[in-house]
Amino acid sequence: MVKITLSIAKQLIEAAEYKAKTLGVSQVISIVDEGGNLVALTRMDGAWLASIDIAQNKAWTAVSLQMPTSALAKIALPTGELFGINTTNQGRVVVLGGGIPLRQNGNVVGAVGVSGSTIINDVKVAKAAVQAFEHLYGFNVQPFPHQAYYY
Amino acid sequence: MVKITLSIAKQLIEAAEYKAKTLGVSQVISIVDEGGNLVALTRMDGAWLASIDIAQNKAWTAVSLQMPTSALAKIALPTGELFGINTTNQGRVVVLGGGIPLRQNGNVVGAVGVSGSTIINDVKVAKAAVQAFEHLYGFNVQPFPHQAYYY
Amino acid sequence: MVKITLSIAKQLIEAAEYKAKTLGVSQVISIVDEGGNLVALTRMDGAWLASIDIAQNKAWTAVSLQMPTSALAKIALPTGELFGINTTNQGRVVVLGGGIPLRQNGNVVGAVGVSGSTIINDVKVAKAAVQAFEHLYGFNVQPFPHQAYYY
Amino acid sequence: MVKITLSIAKQLIEAAEYKAKTLGVSQVISIVDEGGNLVALTRMDGAWLASIDIAQNKAWTAVSLQMPTSALAKIALPTGELFGINTTNQGRVVVLGGGIPLRQNGNVVGAVGVSGSTIINDVKVAKAAVQAFEHLYGFNVQPFPHQAYYY
Repeated sequence: MVKITLSIAKQLIEAAEYKAKTLGVSQVISIVDEGGNLVALTRMDGAWLASIDIAQNKAWTAVSLQMPTSALAKIALPTGELFGINTTNQGRVVVLGGGIPLRQNGNVVGAVGVSGSTIINDVKVAKAAVQAFEHLYGFNVQPFPHQAYYY
Repeated sequence: MVKITLSIAKQLIEAAEYKAKTLGVSQVISIVDEGGNLVALTRMDGAWLASIDIAQNKAWTAVSLQMPTSALAKIALPTGELFGINTTNQGRVVVLGGGIPLRQNGNVVGAVGVSGSTIINDVKVAKAAVQAFEHLYGFNVQPFPHQAYYY
Repeated sequence: MVKITLSIAKQLIEAAEYKAKTLGVSQVISIVDEGGNLVALTRMDGAWLASIDIAQNKAWTAVSLQMPTSALAKIALPTGELFGINTTNQGRVVVLGGGIPLRQNGNVVGAVGVSGSTIINDVKVAKAAVQAFEHLYGFNVQPFPHQAYYY
Repeated sequence: MVKITLSIAKQLIEAAEYKAKTLGVSQVISIVDEGGNLVALTRMDGAWLASIDIAQNKAWTAVSLQMPTSALAKIALPTGELFGINTTNQGRVVVLGGGIPLRQNGNVVGAVGVSGSTIINDVKVAKAAVQAFEHLYGFNVQPFPHQAYYY
C-alpha cells in the first residue's frame, strides 16, 4: 500500500494551489496520512486563519470516517443519520465539504483537506489534489464508495 | 498596513461603550489585532459573564473568517453552506452577530467583538467601534465584501 | 464590600501602565473581580502574545487561591507543599509572580495580573495597581496574610 | 515590516529540510507568522508523530515570548524564574530548544519551530531556517536580545 510521503504530499499541495490560483481564491491545504496525522500544510497568502484548523480537520475527518466531508454535510443535519457527529472527537469532525480521502484499490491511504472559500471552491481544490494523486497512482474506480451507502 | 495598537483599541472601545450607554445596555467589548490576538477588553458593569468569552471569540471569528459574524448566522443554519462551522476551531467560531472586521483598503487588520445584549444591540455597538476606526483611518468603501457574496 | 467596577479597573490599569512605561517594559495587564472573572485587559504595544493568557490567569489564580502568585512560585517547586498545583484547574493556576489579590479589610475583592517582562518587573507593575487600589480604598494592613503562613 | 508569506515560509522550510538531510535526521518543520498563526508545515518521512504538535508550538512559543525556546529550557527549571511557564496557554508553551523567532530590525515577524531529533539537531535545523531568512532580509545584528537578558 502506498504511503503518503512528504514528496507525494508536496505534489498534491502543488496541484491544489495551482487550482486555487486559477479560481482566484486563497486556501489552506493540508495532507494527512493513513493514520490521520498531518504530513504537510500550506496557508496561501490571505487565507482565513480559521481555515488552518478546518483544513486539517477536514482531512482528518475524511480519513477517520473514510468518506468525503461533503457526504457528512447532509447526514449531519438535524434528523440526519449522523446528526451530532461534529461534536464528537473533541470537535475534530468537520461536516463541511472540502475533505476527501486518498484511495488506492479502494483502501484509504490518506486524505486532503481544503478550506478558505465557498464549499464549492474548497471541493474543487481538494479534487485537484485527489486527481494529482490518481495521476500518480492510477485512476480510482471507487472514489467514494460510502457515498452510495448514504445517498 | 495599520497595526491595531492599544491606543487605537482604547478609542474604539470608548466609542463602543458610549454607544452602549446611549442604548442603555451593558456589554463586553473586545478588540483583536490582525493575528486574532486580544489587544484590549472591557466588561461594563452588570454585563453577562458568558459575554467575556463570546465577545473575544466574536472578534476572533471576524478576523479569522474575514467577515462579520452576523453573516455566519444564516449560513451556519442547518442546510446552510457552513452548517457545522461553529464546532470547528475548538468552539472559537461564534455565529452570533456582534463581531465585525476592521478593514483598511479592504484588508482585515483586526476586529471588534461585542456581546451582552440582543444581537441587534451587539451589532449596533460593534458598528460604533468600526465607525470610530473608519473616522481614524478613512471610510472603507468595501466594509463587508463577503456579505454580498453570501447573500 | 467594594465591587471591582470597570471604572476602578481602568484606574488600576492606568496606574499599572504608567509604571510599566517608567520601567520601559511592555506588559499585559488584567483585572478580575471577586468571582475571578475578567473586568478589563490591556496589551501594551509589543507585549508578548503568551502574556494575554498568563496575565489573566495570574489574576484568576490570585483571587482563586487568595494569595499573590509569587507565593506559589516557591511552594509549587518539587518537594514544595503545593507541587503540581499548576496543572490543576485546566492549567489556569499560574505559579509565576505578577498576580496579586485586591483586598478590602482583609477580604479578597478582586485581583490584578501582569505579564510580559521579568518576574521582578511584573510584580512591580502589579503592585502599582494594588497601590492605586489602596489609594482609592484605604491602606490594607494585611496585604498578603497567606504569605506569613507559607514562609 | 516584512510579512511571512507562503513563499518565504517554503524557502525557509526548504533550507531546514536540506540541513536535516545533511544531519541524517527526520524533522517536522513549521513556520508561523507574526500573530503566531501557522503558515506552512512539513513532516519529513519517518519523523515522530508527536513532533507535529511540538514543532508548531515551538514556533508559536518563539513568537509569543519573543525568544528562542532554548532560552526557556533553563529558566523554566525548578527555581528558575519562569518555572511553571509551560503549563500556561493550554500547554502551548514549549520549553524545548528548536523554536527561534524570525526578526527584522529587532522586531519579531514570525518564527520557525523544529522537532524530531535531539535538541541539538532541532536547534541546528531551526537555525538553518533563520539563516535563510537573514539571507533574504539582511543579517540581524540582535538575533536573540532576550537571551542576554536572561543569562
